[in-house]
Amino acid sequence: MKIKPFAEIAKQYKAIFFDSFGVLKHYKGIIPGAINTIDFLKTNDIDYLVLTNVASRSPLQMADGFSKMGLVDITADRIISSGMMAQDYLRYKVKNGRAVYIGTEKSAHYIEETGLHTVSIQDLDLNELDDINALVFLDDEGYDWRLAINKSINLLRKKNISVIVANTDEAYPVAKDEIAVAIGGLAEMIEKIVNKNFIHFGKPDGQMFIYAYQEMLKRQDIDKNDILMVGDTLYTDIIGGNKFGIDTALVLSGNTQRKNANSLIRNMGIIPDYICESISVDI
Amino acid sequence: MKIKPFAEIAKQYKAIFFDSFGVLKHYKGIIPGAINTIDFLKTNDIDYLVLTNVASRSPLQMADGFSKMGLVDITADRIISSGMMAQDYLRYKVKNGRAVYIGTEKSAHYIEETGLHTVSIQDLDLNELDDINALVFLDDEGYDWRLAINKSINLLRKKNISVIVANTDEAYPVAKDEIAVAIGGLAEMIEKIVNKNFIHFGKPDGQMFIYAYQEMLKRQDIDKNDILMVGDTLYTDIIGGNKFGIDTALVLSGNTQRKNANSLIRNMGIIPDYICESISVDI
Amino acid sequence: MKIKPFAEIAKQYKAIFFDSFGVLKHYKGIIPGAINTIDFLKTNDIDYLVLTNVASRSPLQMADGFSKMGLVDITADRIISSGMMAQDYLRYKVKNGRAVYIGTEKSAHYIEETGLHTVSIQDLDLNELDDINALVFLDDEGYDWRLAINKSINLLRKKNISVIVANTDEAYPVAKDEIAVAIGGLAEMIEKIVNKNFIHFGKPDGQMFIYAYQEMLKRQDIDKNDILMVGDTLYTDIIGGNKFGIDTALVLSGNTQRKNANSLIRNMGIIPDYICESISVDI
Amino acid sequence: MKIKPFAEIAKQYKAIFFDSFGVLKHYKGIIPGAINTIDFLKTNDIDYLVLTNVASRSPLQMADGFSKMGLVDITADRIISSGMMAQDYLRYKVKNGRAVYIGTEKSAHYIEETGLHTVSIQDLDLNELDDINALVFLDDEGYDWRLAINKSINLLRKKNISVIVANTDEAYPVAKDEIAVAIGGLAEMIEKIVNKNFIHFGKPDGQMFIYAYQEMLKRQDIDKNDILMVGDTLYTDIIGGNKFGIDTALVLSGNTQRKNANSLIRNMGIIPDYICESISVDI
Repeated sequence: MKIKPFAEIAKQYKAIFFDSFGVLKHYKGIIPGAINTIDFLKTNDIDYLVLTNVASRSPLQMADGFSKMGLVDITADRIISSGMMAQDYLRYKVKNGRAVYIGTEKSAHYIEETGLHTVSIQDLDLNELDDINALVFLDDEGYDWRLAINKSINLLRKKNISVIVANTDEAYPVAKDEIAVAIGGLAEMIEKIVNKNFIHFGKPDGQMFIYAYQEMLKRQDIDKNDILMVGDTLYTDIIGGNKFGIDTALVLSGNTQRKNANSLIRNMGIIPDYICESISVDI
Repeated sequence: MKIKPFAEIAKQYKAIFFDSFGVLKHYKGIIPGAINTIDFLKTNDIDYLVLTNVASRSPLQMADGFSKMGLVDITADRIISSGMMAQDYLRYKVKNGRAVYIGTEKSAHYIEETGLHTVSIQDLDLNELDDINALVFLDDEGYDWRLAINKSINLLRKKNISVIVANTDEAYPVAKDEIAVAIGGLAEMIEKIVNKNFIHFGKPDGQMFIYAYQEMLKRQDIDKNDILMVGDTLYTDIIGGNKFGIDTALVLSGNTQRKNANSLIRNMGIIPDYICESISVDI
Repeated sequence: MKIKPFAEIAKQYKAIFFDSFGVLKHYKGIIPGAINTIDFLKTNDIDYLVLTNVASRSPLQMADGFSKMGLVDITADRIISSGMMAQDYLRYKVKNGRAVYIGTEKSAHYIEETGLHTVSIQDLDLNELDDINALVFLDDEGYDWRLAINKSINLLRKKNISVIVANTDEAYPVAKDEIAVAIGGLAEMIEKIVNKNFIHFGKPDGQMFIYAYQEMLKRQDIDKNDILMVGDTLYTDIIGGNKFGIDTALVLSGNTQRKNANSLIRNMGIIPDYICESISVDI
Repeated sequence: MKIKPFAEIAKQYKAIFFDSFGVLKHYKGIIPGAINTIDFLKTNDIDYLVLTNVASRSPLQMADGFSKMGLVDITADRIISSGMMAQDYLRYKVKNGRAVYIGTEKSAHYIEETGLHTVSIQDLDLNELDDINALVFLDDEGYDWRLAINKSINLLRKKNISVIVANTDEAYPVAKDEIAVAIGGLAEMIEKIVNKNFIHFGKPDGQMFIYAYQEMLKRQDIDKNDILMVGDTLYTDIIGGNKFGIDTALVLSGNTQRKNANSLIRNMGIIPDYICESISVDI
């Protein structure tokens, strides 16, 4: 599959859905050219949203992060996160009691906006579970792993409650050639050991795409044919976009490297409509 | 969890999403009381749709089937099938060329409505794949299994194309205490052997729920809080409904039997909001 | 990893364990040079056995096959098959009653040597299961797949019996660039659908290696250090040999091709001690 | 399946293979009656070995533990551990360099007996991997989980080395109704994330059974027919014993409880030859 300039492709669409990590930014800051790209979209009247598997921060906090890096136009209303899907679930399905969370205190604030009371897995008393109605996986930081993993397993053996995984990512890059296990990877291990069915939110699941499409419909009258999903990961961004029925472009600035992009596409059977070096409009 | 009468529960909602097999009908015909239940809904001004994992027949053909069993009100516009999701995918993502299908000739007619040309896996020439752009799993009947399985594996080794599984069900009941492998089970075996990522449509995937919700919004202004999903299968109907954020009721007239309902709920960690004997309003 | 001549490597060992398919023979006949290699081993006083995942033929029938291709020295006593492991299991654990088999009539003869009566899945009456004590997967030929698959699932729903998979291979090559699903692949699909634990025999499982080692000990006093396993498949021959504690050589004449051998080794984390083009001693 | 007294069953055999945890001892000390049972076996001239999935202590240390609980006859030569299998592997296949271990310092002593140098994952410098030749999972204690998990993943991304899981258990009981994740559970999560093939030692794998059988053959001339495996866990002790071709007895004093033994046997399709309350000969 040939590599094409992003600008040439983007011009064919009325709206772009961007993945965040590996597309707009990486572990060291923003992707070179990202600010120009946002300007290019504005100039060409192409709207955009950001679809990201994150549950450790609210859209407001993420927008603040973008702004500090110079991407001032990516405001909170442009950000659709897997954490929002989880928040939605809790609002509709877990109306009262307390939710146990695995993550930082900060990550819990966002789900508290639903009105739910929360308790950290670290502070949970396994003998007082009467009002505990959900377990939510939010972040890989903020607790001792061994304690949290063992306690959550015993919680689920004692009480049959819904378990929400607010970010399906298994791992994430923390430096060049260095990754760390993400909260989705941790949740999967626990799901396998307790042998129950957790509820997972995040790409490639269709819910985020449809949520984003609904948001875009509020901004303009648009058909799926006129939207392009841009991502760096075949098994979340690209297969998710494909399944939702929109065109997809793989960028080589993140998880998928130039040298093995074609063999990965072939081996995984996940086929993007386009491949671009990055979202930079200068190359 | 206590078993409650369906009528009492249904009255709290403005709309019902019904699974079909095991809820409205079973292998011998309609579920006793189903006609009364539809009348009851009409009288009480409760709207309804049918969400079914079927790709072997069109909504029109399914409505015809319901009608012949006496459920004349379940018209095609009330039926949302996994086959419709697959048809949608093909319309948006596979615009030209030919799609290879695994199923009966009849099952292929439905996807031909998108304008795509089709060829049965049986008639496919593995040396003429230039215009082949998709492989679609539709039905467990209409071909020799060994031939079709081996041919589809070799097709995917020769050409990297999208594979669509238009019904995720692994098995279905054909008589009392007797089941048959469904097309979803067959597709999973092939997916594992070729080690590629197929695109699966059908409950518990959110796409069908959102499609149904959009349809319901065209019929009335309604919030998710006012919709009840009714199904006989925990890992499709109930977990799918839960994840979508609507209330769920498990009926004991199909896949899940009274004697093990509670232990299944506990073991699987999939928790319906209600349990009913069946949808009959007379009990 | 560098490719080395087989002769140079083999000379360091007192005994060789050969995989059969892809190493000694392939779908078109014997591997070029195989007869010379066997002579080379004889001349250099290196003993050998053949370890093969086959359950459709007896060692006697396989030796006959080798003989017809010119490999007259590979007599039945040199052949260790996964079918022998299954036969052993049936002898020790299923002493009476009837075993249902999935395969050709010919494949059943071998397990009948244990004294067990057998019945083909095709002829089985699902209402007369009193004396049925095992289900055995033998071969991918000799029956209608859809009938056999559905019947075996319903058999296992009606009676809790041991299930033996006498060959773990998922697929096998039938021509250049063409494979067919093997009985192991079929068994896995059924295992997943019935969600029970089958008993699998064949490499990489240690049982075949230990059986072969015991046989070799009868022929000469030998330490594991002096045995080399030669195979074409990383996840059966090589990982099995490694785990058993013997040295391993990957040949490129079968499942693993030269062009992707190193990337497969890296991706799978299965590391042979050597790589050879083939077992030919002339190259 | 009927529950029978252990004494009545044991008398039919010349040797017993015991699992340790849940059979001879539990989290609070020895199983009531265990000392009598060992005396009973001595009186009746029935020999025995202990087969245990442990890699955190040497057989000598385990024998010491049994002795302190009053089981003075269970000497080190009667104990076969998964750690011994791992030690064997390292002796044969990883002859030089250093092995990285995940576990306590104490657990590493045992593998150092092979002559290998070791380094804890905590102390490993990811920039000095030249002489690192294996990664070994030994124990769930002795390190910070998050650090160890992330470091081992990055180690495997940087260097393709053999990975040995010296205990396959996913979890173990630490109190009534309370479990903890075992090193096998941790290893599986990492295996899934790096997507490589680890080498696992421990029941149900046949290697331990054959090792034990060889040991028993040194003590007496015995056929597999005369050995009984006694365990509390269906998917390790019982399926492993069955597959190896020896008779199996499930005890209800550990992982498998009386109330759900029969349904577990049915659901898992793992069928012991006998069920006993415990190994006590007084009941």
